[in-house]
Amino acid sequence: MSTSSKVGIAVVGAGYWGPNLIRNFRAADDWDLVAVCDLDVERAQKALGARSGVEVHADLVDVLARDDVDAIAIATPARTHQDIALTAMRAGKHVLVEKPLADSVANGSAMVDLARSQDVVLMADHTYCYTPAVQKIRELIADGALGEILFIDSVRINLGLVQPDVDVFWDLAPHDLSILDFILPDGLRPEGVAAHGADPLRAGKSCVGYLTMPLPGGAIAHVHVNWLSPTKIRQMVIGGSRRTLVWDDLNPQQRISVYDRGVDLAQVSADDRTAATISYRLGDTWAPALPEREALGSMVAEYAACIRDKRASLTDGAAGLRVLSVLEAASASLVTGGSLVDPDTRTVEREAV
Amino acid sequence: MSTSSKVGIAVVGAGYWGPNLIRNFRAADDWDLVAVCDLDVERAQKALGARSGVEVHADLVDVLARDDVDAIAIATPARTHQDIALTAMRAGKHVLVEKPLADSVANGSAMVDLARSQDVVLMADHTYCYTPAVQKIRELIADGALGEILFIDSVRINLGLVQPDVDVFWDLAPHDLSILDFILPDGLRPEGVAAHGADPLRAGKSCVGYLTMPLPGGAIAHVHVNWLSPTKIRQMVIGGSRRTLVWDDLNPQQRISVYDRGVDLAQVSADDRTAATISYRLGDTWAPALPEREALGSMVAEYAACIRDKRASLTDGAAGLRVLSVLEAASASLVTGGSLVDPDTRTVEREAV
Amino acid sequence: MSTSSKVGIAVVGAGYWGPNLIRNFRAADDWDLVAVCDLDVERAQKALGARSGVEVHADLVDVLARDDVDAIAIATPARTHQDIALTAMRAGKHVLVEKPLADSVANGSAMVDLARSQDVVLMADHTYCYTPAVQKIRELIADGALGEILFIDSVRINLGLVQPDVDVFWDLAPHDLSILDFILPDGLRPEGVAAHGADPLRAGKSCVGYLTMPLPGGAIAHVHVNWLSPTKIRQMVIGGSRRTLVWDDLNPQQRISVYDRGVDLAQVSADDRTAATISYRLGDTWAPALPEREALGSMVAEYAACIRDKRASLTDGAAGLRVLSVLEAASASLVTGGSLVDPDTRTVEREAV
Amino acid sequence: MSTSSKVGIAVVGAGYWGPNLIRNFRAADDWDLVAVCDLDVERAQKALGARSGVEVHADLVDVLARDDVDAIAIATPARTHQDIALTAMRAGKHVLVEKPLADSVANGSAMVDLARSQDVVLMADHTYCYTPAVQKIRELIADGALGEILFIDSVRINLGLVQPDVDVFWDLAPHDLSILDFILPDGLRPEGVAAHGADPLRAGKSCVGYLTMPLPGGAIAHVHVNWLSPTKIRQMVIGGSRRTLVWDDLNPQQRISVYDRGVDLAQVSADDRTAATISYRLGDTWAPALPEREALGSMVAEYAACIRDKRASLTDGAAGLRVLSVLEAASASLVTGGSLVDPDTRTVEREAV
Repeated sequence: MSTSSKVGIAVVGAGYWGPNLIRNFRAADDWDLVAVCDLDVERAQKALGARSGVEVHADLVDVLARDDVDAIAIATPARTHQDIALTAMRAGKHVLVEKPLADSVANGSAMVDLARSQDVVLMADHTYCYTPAVQKIRELIADGALGEILFIDSVRINLGLVQPDVDVFWDLAPHDLSILDFILPDGLRPEGVAAHGADPLRAGKSCVGYLTMPLPGGAIAHVHVNWLSPTKIRQMVIGGSRRTLVWDDLNPQQRISVYDRGVDLAQVSADDRTAATISYRLGDTWAPALPEREALGSMVAEYAACIRDKRASLTDGAAGLRVLSVLEAASASLVTGGSLVDPDTRTVEREAV
Repeated sequence: MSTSSKVGIAVVGAGYWGPNLIRNFRAADDWDLVAVCDLDVERAQKALGARSGVEVHADLVDVLARDDVDAIAIATPARTHQDIALTAMRAGKHVLVEKPLADSVANGSAMVDLARSQDVVLMADHTYCYTPAVQKIRELIADGALGEILFIDSVRINLGLVQPDVDVFWDLAPHDLSILDFILPDGLRPEGVAAHGADPLRAGKSCVGYLTMPLPGGAIAHVHVNWLSPTKIRQMVIGGSRRTLVWDDLNPQQRISVYDRGVDLAQVSADDRTAATISYRLGDTWAPALPEREALGSMVAEYAACIRDKRASLTDGAAGLRVLSVLEAASASLVTGGSLVDPDTRTVEREAV
Repeated sequence: MSTSSKVGIAVVGAGYWGPNLIRNFRAADDWDLVAVCDLDVERAQKALGARSGVEVHADLVDVLARDDVDAIAIATPARTHQDIALTAMRAGKHVLVEKPLADSVANGSAMVDLARSQDVVLMADHTYCYTPAVQKIRELIADGALGEILFIDSVRINLGLVQPDVDVFWDLAPHDLSILDFILPDGLRPEGVAAHGADPLRAGKSCVGYLTMPLPGGAIAHVHVNWLSPTKIRQMVIGGSRRTLVWDDLNPQQRISVYDRGVDLAQVSADDRTAATISYRLGDTWAPALPEREALGSMVAEYAACIRDKRASLTDGAAGLRVLSVLEAASASLVTGGSLVDPDTRTVEREAV
Repeated sequence: MSTSSKVGIAVVGAGYWGPNLIRNFRAADDWDLVAVCDLDVERAQKALGARSGVEVHADLVDVLARDDVDAIAIATPARTHQDIALTAMRAGKHVLVEKPLADSVANGSAMVDLARSQDVVLMADHTYCYTPAVQKIRELIADGALGEILFIDSVRINLGLVQPDVDVFWDLAPHDLSILDFILPDGLRPEGVAAHGADPLRAGKSCVGYLTMPLPGGAIAHVHVNWLSPTKIRQMVIGGSRRTLVWDDLNPQQRISVYDRGVDLAQVSADDRTAATISYRLGDTWAPALPEREALGSMVAEYAACIRDKRASLTDGAAGLRVLSVLEAASASLVTGGSLVDPDTRTVEREAV
């Protein structure tokens, strides 16, 4: 621990996401941001601004050698997560990793295993799970307000940067998958994953992608991710047997709408299914008030609490692994033209918890 | 022909869709609505209103026997289309059929064949193709305003009536597929069809459905149809190499937006693809003015023109068959868990035109 | 009464609004549309369509002479309302008048007086009052769901036809004023009316208009009407001490939103008002389900019920007079540069009821 | 000047707005934030965050005594602006003042006069004028894209903090008025100001307000400000003789829409004005691309440029005075029940420039 009652943190990587972490660790009462690490020290300095008392390092070794660094937050490309995380955990540091946890299930598993043996916190920065909207959705599902989940349709499209090393699934779908993992009572455990992608620009990887995931009990989850759309849509429809919820993340005045509206099917004998047995509920709509709170603020608070209370995070390594399992299954499905692939998320959990 | 210069028309079926046809044939200068046919004559009478001079028949034979009936419009369940259409064409009447053209490719083909040998007009009521929005989209694509088509994503979800005899694909996707057929320069000719559905209510058929269709040249089309959504979305995103178009049918103030915005990929050697070669256009948005015109009014005008000019319709039997081919391929894909099925739309066209 | 149990109705005027009335009287079980009257008989015939059994007259005298005409509906320019209505009422016919009731308080009063002495129904076609949304708003206010009304802001702007004989206040504001009269528990009784208008096109009359109306108890109502706006807005915000309601008539998926959100002011002594005494409620939003029903259908049903039950309508002549009083006060304010003018709606009511 | 090539700045006031200024001065290449001044030093320290090298002062005198402070930015209540600004200018410092410039025309004038005699920059932080949207609007009007301005309607409503010392006009309308001043080619020079307010909560001041301002040439500007609305609206409609522009600040995907749609009036003799002479343009809509840039970043850059180039700002003291003149006229109108009051903005300009 650092000399104060605050937890000392170093941010590793000052590129796209790092500055957001820097800002939030700085503003948090729980944390003392003591260092930023980036090969490009000028970039790190710029992220901190002038007249800053936070130190900048080019070499991770120097960061990990510091006594006032209790924990690190990794915001580097996914292919580097495993190395940095393992090195830091061996030095006894707690580790937070930007999504996705790693670039493969195997590498993610190694991280989960080492965290357990070193007895340090390993947490995935599944940022969306810390938004007031997703927290409310999780709560509503847990309370049974939606009933049994029938379908989930998630759309995340935008004009996005075509990434040099990952396709649109690995870039954007971790958001949707980590949210699904967070809100579903048993986590994300699809019965299969079918992926369809397109590379119409000949960029060498899918820029448009669709994921279909049959869920236990006849339900279905579907994700549309797209780098080529000029309009931005971030919307999730969660159909339940009692109510249906629509989350429109780009409508700050009414992010969540809960519709007491749906189709009911009376119990009928198998040979007597007709339209007559179906009835409609056309009830009211309800939009719960959501606090105005930045997700990253809640996320860094959860990280501090996990360290203090020596407990697993709501978005722990196992959650990160379940997301990786679906991503790997998607990649496998893609090369077979869209066949259903078993993500085997059950095994994942057993190892991780 | 009826004694006047107008074409005499009878509407067959006064259920859900029939009254809309009745209203439009009545209001059209080209047409003289002389009869309505429905087994339920009271329903037919109600659709016409009191003090109407239009005759009502319960028996199709009586309608077809009338000299003042030059043409009919069929608005009955899809499984009855073939019988009614064949009988009418044998009686020398022109035939308009509500979507889908028939309940199978085989039955649709029989209709197309008979229309040719009888030399009568066979037209599919692909209503959306006659909206000002879709007409404009077709024109923009034909003029090259969008460039090469890269992806098409269509969403049509709503709280819908769970149909007794068809699933959500056969109920709703004909709209999307007929639009795709209409706007694509070569019609709808996907390289395959993969369908995923869910029946979480145990209604005995898919209530949520996803269609994925690889298109020639690496493009992709995707359709989401859903009976269980409490919110209504009718939106199509058409990504092109020059511009991208978004059609939001529920925004009457700006149904079509054309974005001069996108991702460009510079020509690079195969071994040197990196993010650096990609550039963005963040240009203006343009929303073309669209006339306020009811689609059905344009559709019945096209029907009259085809009869008068003895020409094929923009939405002729061949178009209807291409839609049926994709629907049959989707049903076949569904039973195999989502594998890609060849809809063989090329053969369809050769026979039909 | 006509020979059937239905009430016989004739529509006078087949211009812009008449066809809507024709369609609704035709479709209603209560009514038997027997005649349409218009100086331009071709226009009347066109509104009825071919093969119609409804008679067309050019002369009002002929209509009023018919025994099967129990009631008429007037859809002619406002300056002709009084003459037609008085003539019809003298012939013993019930009268429905398109908004505004008349072109002056004096003329409207004459109509109200004659209706009373002739014992016939005089009803104003304040169509919006029969929409499910306005009916729900009236109900919520009556039930106290909003608490005490604090402010009402109504916007009705659109690219509109610059009328030859009336300004934008007399053309559009009758909608807003009749709605206010309908939903306010005591009807529309402002303490004054201030009007500001602009004629930037030099059309000879206001094309942009603002009405400000202090209400009893410190509340305020404000109306913005505008013929020159390329975007269409029809929105009313009704602020209450308990909740605030927003009615967005162009959002069919959520026309009414009720916000349990607002500012509370603790009771404080007059010399101690500070920001500290104010608290916020940031509660949930609730959107009541509204039936899908055409307002004109409900309006003609109310007209029939009033005749049958010999009772005053919810939008009777007195309501029409209160609207006229405000419009006249607005015209008076306009010529004085916006000074507050007393509409004297109290007198109006005493005479009318 | 501070020893570096950067301009040394101190922010005075670390309450609501100060932290935004702190963040932007810190991030700007032009500036060196050297001090923050607040009576509540803890609040100032918190705004800076831990490990900051920026000094905190409780006393303005200490700030002004520093050689490395070239300029200050005032973010304190309006009633304190004059004192702080005059003191700073007497010490030779440049001054930026949060809106409104002062709490009266007299006080604002004193500031403008002293700035001139001391030869320092006096700039009003009319933040909205530095948004890409408002800059584009100014440019479009200057280029004649809208033609002659016919009407401007501005709505700024929200659940707002009821301020202890100012009413809703003085709190919110400075935004609208400074924007009008910025985009109108001759600045904001209404022919009169009429204000209507309501205090339905009995807070001791207007919480709902309407400003009507006849403009030269028959045009009109109108502003609706409201602290009690549960929905947030920030929208301005600018009607022109050629095109009409709608600015919806809460729609980041299409903030500005330019409608080539409107009403045309043919030249007619005065005694022959009829509807027939009016025609409609129903043209396309165009939404210019806007850069993603924070307004405050551009504002602080303009402040630096004014100091360096020794020139007046786009939002200089004279602009601030014109806004104050309208606010004072509004207050005067309010006590007379809404009569038109002359803001005398012409004099203002002559003195100020």
